[in-house]
Amino acid sequence: MDIKRLNTSDASFWDDLKGMLEWETVSDKAVFNTVNDILADVRTRGDEALLEYTNRFDRMDAGAMSQLEIPQARLHEAHANLPADQREALELAAGRIRNYAEHQTMESWQYTEADGTVLGQQVTPLDRVGLYVPGGKAAYPSSVLMNAIPAKVAGVAELIMVVPTPDGVVNELVLAAALVAGVDRVFTVGGAQAVAALAYGTESVPPVDKIVGPGNIYVATAKRMVFGTVGIDMIAGPSEILVMCDGKTDPDWIAMDLFSQAEHDEDAQAILLTTDAAFAEQVIESMKRQVLEMPRADIIRESIVSRGVVIVADDLDNAIEVANFIAPEHLELSLDDAMEVSSKIRHAGAIFIGRYTSEAIGDYCAGPNHVLPTSRTARFSSPLGVYDFQKRSSLISCTADSASRLGKTASVLARGEGLIAHARSAEYRIKD
Amino acid sequence: MDIKRLNTSDASFWDDLKGMLEWETVSDKAVFNTVNDILADVRTRGDEALLEYTNRFDRMDAGAMSQLEIPQARLHEAHANLPADQREALELAAGRIRNYAEHQTMESWQYTEADGTVLGQQVTPLDRVGLYVPGGKAAYPSSVLMNAIPAKVAGVAELIMVVPTPDGVVNELVLAAALVAGVDRVFTVGGAQAVAALAYGTESVPPVDKIVGPGNIYVATAKRMVFGTVGIDMIAGPSEILVMCDGKTDPDWIAMDLFSQAEHDEDAQAILLTTDAAFAEQVIESMKRQVLEMPRADIIRESIVSRGVVIVADDLDNAIEVANFIAPEHLELSLDDAMEVSSKIRHAGAIFIGRYTSEAIGDYCAGPNHVLPTSRTARFSSPLGVYDFQKRSSLISCTADSASRLGKTASVLARGEGLIAHARSAEYRIKD
Repeated sequence: MDIKRLNTSDASFWDDLKGMLEWETVSDKAVFNTVNDILADVRTRGDEALLEYTNRFDRMDAGAMSQLEIPQARLHEAHANLPADQREALELAAGRIRNYAEHQTMESWQYTEADGTVLGQQVTPLDRVGLYVPGGKAAYPSSVLMNAIPAKVAGVAELIMVVPTPDGVVNELVLAAALVAGVDRVFTVGGAQAVAALAYGTESVPPVDKIVGPGNIYVATAKRMVFGTVGIDMIAGPSEILVMCDGKTDPDWIAMDLFSQAEHDEDAQAILLTTDAAFAEQVIESMKRQVLEMPRADIIRESIVSRGVVIVADDLDNAIEVANFIAPEHLELSLDDAMEVSSKIRHAGAIFIGRYTSEAIGDYCAGPNHVLPTSRTARFSSPLGVYDFQKRSSLISCTADSASRLGKTASVLARGEGLIAHARSAEYRIKD
Repeated sequence: MDIKRLNTSDASFWDDLKGMLEWETVSDKAVFNTVNDILADVRTRGDEALLEYTNRFDRMDAGAMSQLEIPQARLHEAHANLPADQREALELAAGRIRNYAEHQTMESWQYTEADGTVLGQQVTPLDRVGLYVPGGKAAYPSSVLMNAIPAKVAGVAELIMVVPTPDGVVNELVLAAALVAGVDRVFTVGGAQAVAALAYGTESVPPVDKIVGPGNIYVATAKRMVFGTVGIDMIAGPSEILVMCDGKTDPDWIAMDLFSQAEHDEDAQAILLTTDAAFAEQVIESMKRQVLEMPRADIIRESIVSRGVVIVADDLDNAIEVANFIAPEHLELSLDDAMEVSSKIRHAGAIFIGRYTSEAIGDYCAGPNHVLPTSRTARFSSPLGVYDFQKRSSLISCTADSASRLGKTASVLARGEGLIAHARSAEYRIKD
């Protein structure tokens, strides 16, 4: 298992690094056309089309949409039948995610100026949100908690989950997670047809205001296409981790931390950044040894060989500069003074501070969200949070006096822009 | 000038209303292909391509990119040469926009749990932002203030403005506004080529992290296409206003408020919602009379005839329900108890409270941003604000003890999902 090595003192370092980080979603015309047809069909024919696609793609045999809704009682059943350790772990994780999310809620505010003008910002939750949960191997109950709980904390009145059940196979942990997270309704539909149903509504599925949650290329393409009709979360690229280490953490720990990202899929990216060249080699040796024990060894190998990198930096400042350039989804600071270093990080989805804080804890139960910006988008975006399920309205209230005074300024600027109806509308409120 | 009338008691009311509100951006293959070529070309050839497109599309004759950058001294000159009333109005507006924006800044926070686990959220500004300003007739200095000031309040280190100058014509008010707003660099380029330069960077134009600001269909298409490489603001649809009135405001005021939206362009949408059918007719009569005095009468007529609506509602609660369905960009509450009614509005970009608060005041100088969600997207999105130029990183710091305890939960959930490297990474930190 070979891994690419870079050194910040190489002349071509920044170009090489940029090359390693590049990731562009291939826009496939065939996928686009398929999705386009499905969206149009579900939009026009509603339940009938949704049912047909579900029976066809998921090899189901449903005669009516009512057979594709899972009642709350079934969620309770899944929850009650879980092994006790799993049920407790789910509930502990949900409680911690909820507690952290509650710190994120936005509040309305307003202030009154000396002349009586009131300005403010009114915060309201979205009315109805759709949560896409993939079926099959990528069905992660943790993802249900991470997407659903912030929406409920935000005050979203109705949270509709869709999850495909190919061949009728349901994931009990996913159903239990839906109950714990407070999902209101669950439909066993998936793919572009489920996205269409959520965006446009059908006779059975009510239209939502925003769709969140991960999915395959058909789901991602459908989400991009319905954006505007509804809100969407970010379209995630492959998962990544950057581990910054000063060489004083057990190399086996660091190797496994890198694997915890690499095992997601072949395109996942695991990067080690260290100031200690000898330590870098120890981690590489540990990876070679430990991969042999991994059930997902093939995926890990492919990820590490094709997209992994070990970077040796001159010094800590240099390493921080590299980390800020990478703007990683997950950043582990396995360092002395990790808390101080964290304050110098300008771009990262989540920062795992200190040798004991493994990314895996953050993935499941630390509290902060595991839905994070990938592919350097942490330069301009944030983890999923309560704020993604609330929005703001500006408030402006003028008195007769303030409308008169501000109207004069508005009039000058409106006339400067040649917008005379704007000017006249303001001037009607000028008293002298 | 005829305007469509709807009554909430009509059997087909909701369907008719939905039909009137529908707006979909036409995705034109020719535009898409042109933009795609320009993006690829500027990405590959940098300045050379940017210069060629600018000379061709804007009928310029620049020999080098250095001729397409406007020095700060030129901004000072534009500012100094403005008529005093315009300079004062710009500065008053800028001060009020800045003051309101300062209420929006997000702060970092963290908390420590009983066992020493530290969780938090670190807020950082974007490093560099690009601001697109249209040239020609749609060059609005107010738009420069509204886009640039929140970015600078957020702490964005470098704000790069691009503004095309077809035939070399510059807009002095726009340059002065750039100075007042604190723009760092100005390039006289526009179109898809300017978006490409900002997204990918060229030898002269540094790459930015987010692009904001309005533009024509080529600019909007280019922004959609570079999304992911950089952040973008929303792609705005036509501007809209909904005026809710109880019939006790001067009909001439209301008519002019509707015109202040209609004069933007033929696709703009102006809607009157009232519980007083006789008043509705008075406003219509006033519109017919006042349109004759309007310099942009043709645009206003076309907008009112093709997209305008007058809705008569049964009662106030009914009217509020209609307003929430429309989720308007601008909502004027020209009512008694407008402040109380505003608290029942769940979806609107900006709410103008009371008879004296014209939308025009909000467009220029009240303080809140005039970049607002259009086409019903206020159901899930917010006005442009400081928060669009800041982002969050999650912070997680475990102690040896808390990593051991939380690691057990993470291990159970990871094994439940079949992710063994995740489990092992957490288990390495379990002590007993």
